[in-house]
Amino acid sequence: MAPHTDFAHKLRPAPPDGATIIKCERLGSDLDADQLGQYLHGKTYIDRQQRILDIVKREKLFDKTQQTNLSRPDRYKLGLARGKRLRQLQDVHRWDDEDFVMAEYLVDDVQPYHLHISLFTAALREQTNDEQRAYWMPKVVSWEIIGAYAQTELGHGSNVRGIETEARWDPQSQHFILHSPHLTASKWWNGTLGRTATHAVVIAQLLLPAESGKTDVKYQSHGPHPFIVQVRDTKTHQPPNSIIVGDIGPKYGYAPMDNAYMLFDHHRIPHSALLSRYSQLDLLTGVYTKSKNPSSLYGQLTRGRAVIAMHARLVLARAVTVAVRYLSIRRQFHDRDDPHKQGPELSVLDYSTVQIRILPLLATTFALHYSGLAMRQLYERTRNSSASDGDRVSENADMATLMELHSTSAGLKSLATELAANGIETCRRAMGGHGYGGGTGLIQLNADYLSKPTVEGDNWMITQQVAKYLIKKVKEHAHSLKGQALNKTEENLKDYLYSRTREPNFKVLEDDATLVQAFNWRMSWLASRAYDAREVQRRPWNSLLVEFHKLSRAYSQAMLVSNFHTAIASAAVQELPTTTRNALTDLFRLFALNTMDHEAREFQKSGAVSSDTLDEVSDTVLSLMTKIRPHAVKLVDAWALPDYLLDSALGRYDGRVYEDLFNRAHVLNPLNKVTFNPDYRNDEIVLGSGDVGNIQAKL
Amino acid sequence: MAPHTDFAHKLRPAPPDGATIIKCERLGSDLDADQLGQYLHGKTYIDRQQRILDIVKREKLFDKTQQTNLSRPDRYKLGLARGKRLRQLQDVHRWDDEDFVMAEYLVDDVQPYHLHISLFTAALREQTNDEQRAYWMPKVVSWEIIGAYAQTELGHGSNVRGIETEARWDPQSQHFILHSPHLTASKWWNGTLGRTATHAVVIAQLLLPAESGKTDVKYQSHGPHPFIVQVRDTKTHQPPNSIIVGDIGPKYGYAPMDNAYMLFDHHRIPHSALLSRYSQLDLLTGVYTKSKNPSSLYGQLTRGRAVIAMHARLVLARAVTVAVRYLSIRRQFHDRDDPHKQGPELSVLDYSTVQIRILPLLATTFALHYSGLAMRQLYERTRNSSASDGDRVSENADMATLMELHSTSAGLKSLATELAANGIETCRRAMGGHGYGGGTGLIQLNADYLSKPTVEGDNWMITQQVAKYLIKKVKEHAHSLKGQALNKTEENLKDYLYSRTREPNFKVLEDDATLVQAFNWRMSWLASRAYDAREVQRRPWNSLLVEFHKLSRAYSQAMLVSNFHTAIASAAVQELPTTTRNALTDLFRLFALNTMDHEAREFQKSGAVSSDTLDEVSDTVLSLMTKIRPHAVKLVDAWALPDYLLDSALGRYDGRVYEDLFNRAHVLNPLNKVTFNPDYRNDEIVLGSGDVGNIQAKL
Repeated sequence: MAPHTDFAHKLRPAPPDGATIIKCERLGSDLDADQLGQYLHGKTYIDRQQRILDIVKREKLFDKTQQTNLSRPDRYKLGLARGKRLRQLQDVHRWDDEDFVMAEYLVDDVQPYHLHISLFTAALREQTNDEQRAYWMPKVVSWEIIGAYAQTELGHGSNVRGIETEARWDPQSQHFILHSPHLTASKWWNGTLGRTATHAVVIAQLLLPAESGKTDVKYQSHGPHPFIVQVRDTKTHQPPNSIIVGDIGPKYGYAPMDNAYMLFDHHRIPHSALLSRYSQLDLLTGVYTKSKNPSSLYGQLTRGRAVIAMHARLVLARAVTVAVRYLSIRRQFHDRDDPHKQGPELSVLDYSTVQIRILPLLATTFALHYSGLAMRQLYERTRNSSASDGDRVSENADMATLMELHSTSAGLKSLATELAANGIETCRRAMGGHGYGGGTGLIQLNADYLSKPTVEGDNWMITQQVAKYLIKKVKEHAHSLKGQALNKTEENLKDYLYSRTREPNFKVLEDDATLVQAFNWRMSWLASRAYDAREVQRRPWNSLLVEFHKLSRAYSQAMLVSNFHTAIASAAVQELPTTTRNALTDLFRLFALNTMDHEAREFQKSGAVSSDTLDEVSDTVLSLMTKIRPHAVKLVDAWALPDYLLDSALGRYDGRVYEDLFNRAHVLNPLNKVTFNPDYRNDEIVLGSGDVGNIQAKL
Repeated sequence: MAPHTDFAHKLRPAPPDGATIIKCERLGSDLDADQLGQYLHGKTYIDRQQRILDIVKREKLFDKTQQTNLSRPDRYKLGLARGKRLRQLQDVHRWDDEDFVMAEYLVDDVQPYHLHISLFTAALREQTNDEQRAYWMPKVVSWEIIGAYAQTELGHGSNVRGIETEARWDPQSQHFILHSPHLTASKWWNGTLGRTATHAVVIAQLLLPAESGKTDVKYQSHGPHPFIVQVRDTKTHQPPNSIIVGDIGPKYGYAPMDNAYMLFDHHRIPHSALLSRYSQLDLLTGVYTKSKNPSSLYGQLTRGRAVIAMHARLVLARAVTVAVRYLSIRRQFHDRDDPHKQGPELSVLDYSTVQIRILPLLATTFALHYSGLAMRQLYERTRNSSASDGDRVSENADMATLMELHSTSAGLKSLATELAANGIETCRRAMGGHGYGGGTGLIQLNADYLSKPTVEGDNWMITQQVAKYLIKKVKEHAHSLKGQALNKTEENLKDYLYSRTREPNFKVLEDDATLVQAFNWRMSWLASRAYDAREVQRRPWNSLLVEFHKLSRAYSQAMLVSNFHTAIASAAVQELPTTTRNALTDLFRLFALNTMDHEAREFQKSGAVSSDTLDEVSDTVLSLMTKIRPHAVKLVDAWALPDYLLDSALGRYDGRVYEDLFNRAHVLNPLNKVTFNPDYRNDEIVLGSGDVGNIQAKL
């Protein structure tokens, strides 16, 4: 029987069905989710999302239903087709950059052109001199050439100075000779380069003649420099014989992306290939000059970190949305204390062991939002003020804060990506059996996001930067408490150093402002200990890395708590209706207190919070969750994640979980269109096909 | 150029290469890995592994290189072919059950026949009466029929009593009528049933006539019962019209497994379909009788939990093996305190932030090993003693312990699967960039294992069982301290209750035995608090679930520490060479102290360990890791995981990491055999093919 005519067609879920339950959930809370959504995202964003959604959801190429049934080579092909279609749509609808980013986000599948649009374009825009920019940018913008950014190598990631690829200047021929001296010099991981790109910005050690001998020339390395290199022929799309380039093969996620390996065998590139905004090699004299990178790079980095936090919050919001909706619908067992055990079983989201996993993550989405926003606003303010005749004092203060953020935002990257990556998995497990299925809509998100804790700075390694900055600041203020605090962090450190002998034991359950103080105190205590261990006791750096990691974590948690607290006290929040305002305040407390509960010993040992108060934190967390629970569905609604994006049976807005799960299995699954031969004595796989050996041939 | 003739062929990794490094690692430790391996696994196991390995690695069908490039439908086909081949090899080589399990383990891909061999066979063996067994078992053993076990439903998982599928007895026709009243009654997740099985054991509510009315018959439910049902035709492999059955579609992992959905529309099955060992329905009188399940089921469960712990340790050992080998080879940055910064960069495994993530997990593999082993031995002892004329006293003690384990082993399942699932991901992240690639050999293991924290008892939910048991035991002993302690747990609880007012502050850094005492004390403190909250303060069960989860965790950690401690004091360990013995002792301390460090506040609050002592724990953990580090490679070697199983470029025994990564990319990746058309104005995907629209047609 065909799926549409068989007896399953007339079956409905046992009452109460998901659609009814989720309606009741929404009726049970007077929180205005649309209004909260507008407040969070801004009207421009909400309108853009709807406008782009209407376009992309009509495109057959962006249909997501069969994606998980394709092989990895087909996923690349689909990605290429989708990337082309996105660009075609951009041309047709005259999308600006933000429109395009929104379209990529909604289609929710990385496309092989991604590194062309992002890193390659940025590198050419930032690192070219005027002449180079005028030559290359039109080709880049029109996609006449497709580029990638080739920095990391098989043997070298984070330590850029250690890369092996060489660019040796040959004064005779006036060419650079790109060469890979070892296998480990192979470029590796470089997205868009594996099968798609025609060009690449290649980072290589610039080798220049140091002195001339009789028979040979001694060379000296001037460190890694960027070169633009054509890697494939415009017509045949084949590399020259002196370049080997290809795709590295399947990864955890990002199936449609062609991450590359690339080797050079004395490949010659012209003098103009050296991107020369910050370093120049005089063609005639052979003289090398280098300018310092401008301070605007601090801002760029801050902006990048803000993007990471904002991205993390939406990724996490997606997992939390799916979990909250499904778990409010899912029923399991009656309450053990209910003597009658009649009527529907308990909503899974009513179990405290489920709430403790999901609701703090719901609070975390807001915490990440406010810190991402704060960083973004700071970046924009400093960018504007440096171009205008603004208030000099606040401008200087902003610059100091920006410099601080440059050093410490590594910690936020580390914490935000960890919270989001672990949070997705926590949500998945809380969903029990169905959490393991494709109906979650989280499989690809999960696999893709797992790259984040290790790319763009390994989450553990980069926390050293935070420690380095804070130790320096403690050192500056440890012996002269009268020095001026240039920013909030220095103020917090000074406050601590001034009164370190006392134990403030903040009454964190009585006053929200003391929560912020407690987090700052504990951070300062750890910073002071780190300073003591390194600068006074002179302990080896390597033996302190674990402590540094804790310090960075404490610092970033303090930042999240502080920005969250500032936000709920803001005028924008005070203008929201009481229910919404109270919910945001409860989420703030939940985030802060739940974090404190997990790090209780540090708060106690530092004297920030007394042991007796800490004992009450767990129960306060439980009662906060009881207050938030009735608004949970509305709160995730506020993140305004369209069903098209979620692609989740469990997380659908209308609650028709079981109907959707069944439809995916019974109607959409191609495996059910084939009948198999299970007799082990017969090597045939598809019954009646005689296909003996076919599948083995694919190995 | 073809991969074998191009210039990459002559390139080698930059020195020191992985092969050299890993040789030096092994030379640097005098630990005898083979001997330790024999001690851990036993000679029988090691020999079996080698014997089966020699057979399976020769089979083309078991080649793993292209597995990750196949679509999900092809993964099922490959799984079916592999399942057939495994059974054919069993026939040829006369494998016993353990040989077959070993072959499945080494091939390392779940096969669609798996539930036939495991749950279906067990159900028919355990739940049939003699006549049924005689009829069905020959067909099962010969694979004449292929069976599945159909219990969970779309709307019901853990709460088996809530399943909706009905088996209504019709006295007139003497048939049961199987029926799915709602969509949520659909069987769901049932492995082997989606496309493979011909039969299934179906769990359904047994409905029997309660009383006869004039026009209709009232029915009464007798709860879930097992029925054997033919679900597909022997020739056509199609279900009858009254059954809908199929595969539920892609999941996180287990791609080759056909997890099923199944619905019944008044499907009739004969009286003999009710598996009648424990429940009978008299065909003539209609009288229903039910016997109590025998206590041997306690043992079955214990054995099952032992298997979970033993499986978890090998899964984790695999991730740790890959991580330790790769991270000892991988170099990154010079030591910050090294003024010269010459020579090779530092081995990543020498960073304390890497050690703190990997080496405690190495210790965890041993901790899980000893608890799994202890449970298995206990199970075997009780099984033997109940069949023989053994020592009555020790037999009773064993039975009491077994009863305890039946209640508390849920906690070990929860903790062991969490440690392993999280441990794989921790190892992966510690490997940085390459940890995200296919070269880890961990992608499939990771995806498959993520099912474990939620199947066979959700990891959070089942911890209630532990709390229930411990609260009961505290209740028994709280008021009469003279009652006899029937097992170790009761003894620990009594010790605590007897002297609860004092704070023992065990000197855990001076004496290993006190480590065990400290874990037991903290567990007893939590148990006593749980008893107090529930039985004295009468707090709602639901409000205590988070505390119960902590109690279960503390209990299971105490079990792991205690069994580990017993093992290293055993004669078998005392006979090992000093290096090995010391390494095992260091691993024990590392496991115990690192666990303590993470739960420090509970140890402090319970009075088990003083705050001052706890302050020293972190540094002791660091110095233990320094002692273990030189033996790390040898210690993972001892787990004896063959390269064929690992299928990992990063984790190869010979250390040729970069050569293997490059080979997988450049030689094995099929995507590199195709040239693409990146011009977005042209919808063609493969250059020159004119394949416009081909990939869209697959959606």
